[in-house]
Amino acid sequence: MLAEFDLIQEFFTTAAGQGVALGVGDDATLLTPTAGQQLVVSVDTSVVDVHFPADAPAHAVGHRALAVALSDLAAMGAQSRWCLMALALDQRTWADAVTGRAWMHAYSEGFLALCSRHDTGLVGGDITAGQLAISVTVMGEVASGQALTRHGARPGDIIAVTGALGGGAGGLALWQQGERDLAHPLIKRYLLPTPRLAAGQALSGVASAALDISDGLLADLGHLRRASGVGAELDADALPLVEGLQDALGQSGARQAALSGGDDYELLVSIPPDHWREACSTLARLGIPLTAIGQCVDTPGVSGVMSECQDGWQHFVGETP
Amino acid sequence: MLAEFDLIQEFFTTAAGQGVALGVGDDATLLTPTAGQQLVVSVDTSVVDVHFPADAPAHAVGHRALAVALSDLAAMGAQSRWCLMALALDQRTWADAVTGRAWMHAYSEGFLALCSRHDTGLVGGDITAGQLAISVTVMGEVASGQALTRHGARPGDIIAVTGALGGGAGGLALWQQGERDLAHPLIKRYLLPTPRLAAGQALSGVASAALDISDGLLADLGHLRRASGVGAELDADALPLVEGLQDALGQSGARQAALSGGDDYELLVSIPPDHWREACSTLARLGIPLTAIGQCVDTPGVSGVMSECQDGWQHFVGETP
Repeated sequence: MLAEFDLIQEFFTTAAGQGVALGVGDDATLLTPTAGQQLVVSVDTSVVDVHFPADAPAHAVGHRALAVALSDLAAMGAQSRWCLMALALDQRTWADAVTGRAWMHAYSEGFLALCSRHDTGLVGGDITAGQLAISVTVMGEVASGQALTRHGARPGDIIAVTGALGGGAGGLALWQQGERDLAHPLIKRYLLPTPRLAAGQALSGVASAALDISDGLLADLGHLRRASGVGAELDADALPLVEGLQDALGQSGARQAALSGGDDYELLVSIPPDHWREACSTLARLGIPLTAIGQCVDTPGVSGVMSECQDGWQHFVGETP
Repeated sequence: MLAEFDLIQEFFTTAAGQGVALGVGDDATLLTPTAGQQLVVSVDTSVVDVHFPADAPAHAVGHRALAVALSDLAAMGAQSRWCLMALALDQRTWADAVTGRAWMHAYSEGFLALCSRHDTGLVGGDITAGQLAISVTVMGEVASGQALTRHGARPGDIIAVTGALGGGAGGLALWQQGERDLAHPLIKRYLLPTPRLAAGQALSGVASAALDISDGLLADLGHLRRASGVGAELDADALPLVEGLQDALGQSGARQAALSGGDDYELLVSIPPDHWREACSTLARLGIPLTAIGQCVDTPGVSGVMSECQDGWQHFVGETP
């Protein structure tokens, strides 16, 4: 078995952060929540060969496992505070001590660097033997009643996305073709996504609804529509594509990746028209693109326009996906 | 892939519990912590063939995964409030829809019944494909400054354990010999452990230190000794053994199971002598045995007496384990 305590001590001991009354090392951690704030909690699991490739660099595995969990806090407009990491380690990784330690060093660097960037304390964890997998529980705070949910969108609200789409699906496709350059814009979006925490907090009180694009734009738009009881008209030509997506996948493939590919971890938001200018200028100050891609309507379902497709707008009509 | 939303809706939707401002179904859950309380948080992972056998009944898998996590809250003297469950499911379990649904039904029953018994709301989760494994994050509350930690023991304090020892190791041994009766006292301790939440809360303000016995009595006593900076004298003849342990493992095997076997999930506590009567009567009212097994001393390390062993007390001297 693994020497769990040694691993934690060597690789994961960090300074006790803000609000940590008792850190790692006892049966549980003691946290002091901020008065007047609600707690925002979510868990996400990343499994090798399901959520990331087995040959992904260790630091990207650590970064990505935390990033996808933090993305849920971003979608609530929360400030990230603390996280817990349950890590299952394939014993084969540890058969060779040198390789094992090098992997863990890079993994923890990727994980802790992102913690640090978002003022998030790693306050608990568990390391066990098993198929390589990481479950990250994230805990954030938001002023009571100010969280962004999925159910506040109203007909007439503008539908918008942060950043650019298609990176998750495009990066995966490139990786499968053998591309290994982490600096490639698509690979970077796929393996080193940026959780949109700053955007989420800036849009709290501005957007009427929000969620992150983890299941693909159309699927996540479906979640928003159903939760809010609205329909959507989408201008597929307006979708902001990640740099290099058309080169990699062609025009049709790029559109498909942006519409249905998952793992983009951008925010999908609805914004009342009289808040639109404020939303744009707020995000511009943060250096984060915000692009209008449609609007909420009374008619249930989703309809859309898409200039280049043979079957035109029918592509979009209906309740699915 | 799994139809995650359908699974959650069908098997894991529960009434939003106390303090839940927004339950499962959005990007994250919104909780309202109780004013004046600290948050107690821990995560525990259970992996098939590492922490439980592949042929364990599904309801026991669900019960056990939550119980071992709740045990950490018990050891802090906390009241359990909320939990999140990250479940990785082997696709083979789901190859046959009927078998898969039967498994999930029993699993969720075991998990949710224990939630309900301890007023714990399941407020988040994630279901993915992977080797069968469950990471449970538990969140409890304790009055500020009242948590039981590992570092309060002082020389002269009585060392005691709740319940009875050896069940984890004894039950595992019986299971490996083919015993499958979940009502057998040893199997029950191994697969359906009872988190000692009531005992932990009752001992808050009474015990000077506490932790749960998950690594084995001697190893966990080592954690307590080092955190508190004390030594320990142990009366190994006083160890309370689970019913049937000697029959199953023999006298020496039973002693070994109680001393070094893990997964007992009883509480190991230190209690100042002038609190001892209060501790005993408090736990007696709860119907939970409390047995003195030694005392804290100035001399570092652990020493002990053990009447039947050839090499007598030397068995115990030293800093290990």
